[in-house]
Amino acid sequence: MEVWFTEDQTKNLRISIRVKEVLFSGESLFQKVLVMDTFEFGRLLALDNVIQTNIKDEFVYHEMITHVGLNTHPNPKKVLIIGGGDGGAVREIVKHKGVEQVVHVEIDQMVIDVAKKYFPELSIGFKDPRVEILVADGIKHVKDHKNTYDMIIVDSTDPIGPAVGLFSKEFYRDVFESLTEDGLFVAQTETPFFFENVIKEVIASVSEIFPIMRLFQAVVPTYPGGYWAFTMGSKKHDPLSVDMDKLPVMDTKWYSPEIHKSAFVLQPFVQALLKG
Amino acid sequence: MEVWFTEDQTKNLRISIRVKEVLFSGESLFQKVLVMDTFEFGRLLALDNVIQTNIKDEFVYHEMITHVGLNTHPNPKKVLIIGGGDGGAVREIVKHKGVEQVVHVEIDQMVIDVAKKYFPELSIGFKDPRVEILVADGIKHVKDHKNTYDMIIVDSTDPIGPAVGLFSKEFYRDVFESLTEDGLFVAQTETPFFFENVIKEVIASVSEIFPIMRLFQAVVPTYPGGYWAFTMGSKKHDPLSVDMDKLPVMDTKWYSPEIHKSAFVLQPFVQALLKG
Repeated sequence: MEVWFTEDQTKNLRISIRVKEVLFSGESLFQKVLVMDTFEFGRLLALDNVIQTNIKDEFVYHEMITHVGLNTHPNPKKVLIIGGGDGGAVREIVKHKGVEQVVHVEIDQMVIDVAKKYFPELSIGFKDPRVEILVADGIKHVKDHKNTYDMIIVDSTDPIGPAVGLFSKEFYRDVFESLTEDGLFVAQTETPFFFENVIKEVIASVSEIFPIMRLFQAVVPTYPGGYWAFTMGSKKHDPLSVDMDKLPVMDTKWYSPEIHKSAFVLQPFVQALLKG
Repeated sequence: MEVWFTEDQTKNLRISIRVKEVLFSGESLFQKVLVMDTFEFGRLLALDNVIQTNIKDEFVYHEMITHVGLNTHPNPKKVLIIGGGDGGAVREIVKHKGVEQVVHVEIDQMVIDVAKKYFPELSIGFKDPRVEILVADGIKHVKDHKNTYDMIIVDSTDPIGPAVGLFSKEFYRDVFESLTEDGLFVAQTETPFFFENVIKEVIASVSEIFPIMRLFQAVVPTYPGGYWAFTMGSKKHDPLSVDMDKLPVMDTKWYSPEIHKSAFVLQPFVQALLKG
């Protein structure tokens, strides 16, 4: 007998992954939470039936949503992360010794709980004494904390359900206000292969609010199209002006100083999106 | 009623695509040939139930398997392409005005026939007077043509069935012999996410035979893992030493002079593969 998990990546495209064992299945206040052990990707977390992370390819997403921004800012001390309750991004943030405080705002306690139990490789960063976990609404948190963070990371689900507000222009304005005078933020912003309208809206909003807007990319096999885009809004520091020779050597599998640069090299069809 | 096409990308991973209409289904001497119109990707070609190309994302693969090599060689006049009977690579090769002759060796007449009928956007290059199509065995062709080609492109299916020999060390030796004194070749060589052993073997073989071996990458959403690797073996010219200012401006959607460089920037986990 074979058990398969299937996600509708779009209305007309599905990915199916063979399951060894369902480890947890529950419903929180916000979403359905499913943890499986799979043959191809090891343990895998799905929220509302959408793959969020897995042991095999999680390094790509978590390294790229953190280090690109943290290495663009010359001295990020106070970092906010919204979402990403699995802990993978926090694990990467605490690799930066100069970071003094990590505020982790996750709306769903159940995601944090399953991460601690089933994804110790990801949630290990929660144990770092610099990390404070708040089960709260990230949208409200940024509204309530003006001029506070050097970097904000928006590690959200797709722009449906609880994460819709995290893709709105009003939210990006609040992020701007919540950043210090030379702060910057990075958000996951879907794929230009299937969700080009999401990206177009995000870059239009971010470009209006921030002096510097940059799109960068990585490959996440379990996300639709593989090709994933991240958007950075920055008040002062440009990721393309970083002095590569000064970047710290880190224990990473996808990110490197050279990848920091090449991730911003956009293909003509993506450049066309940026031009609207 | 909904009709879905499903490919087993690995034993434990499947992709499913919703089908508008099956346009052609046949069995050639070598493989099953299936052409469908799909909702997400438009017309799509599968051989032995493995997706080869489709209208939506074909530009990535065809631009990268051709232009990177053609722009590395300063003056490629005679080009051989093995496989790629859909015509997409030929369409890109003939964009290079300096190319005087394109020999296209495809083993399966049926693939050429369905390309002409169902994929006119890809097979349009077949009409170029510089193109000669041979329905023949590419392995034998390179054995029989020593010191002939400036560039050889191996646009094969996966290393199972008719394409097994196109991943062998003996074949790469024959490719070396078939190239002129400063010739180079490019082959599609699967993905480091799932088929790392294929890549390891290929780079070991190519490194042994060619003075210059380089791996480069692109994102093809309908291929397993999205992240796709190409391998170049070159007798003299290094793709990393190309003068970007001298590259011709071309009508492309994925390839550009900047992408030419960034495609060779490998992530630490892929660099580790290269080191064996």
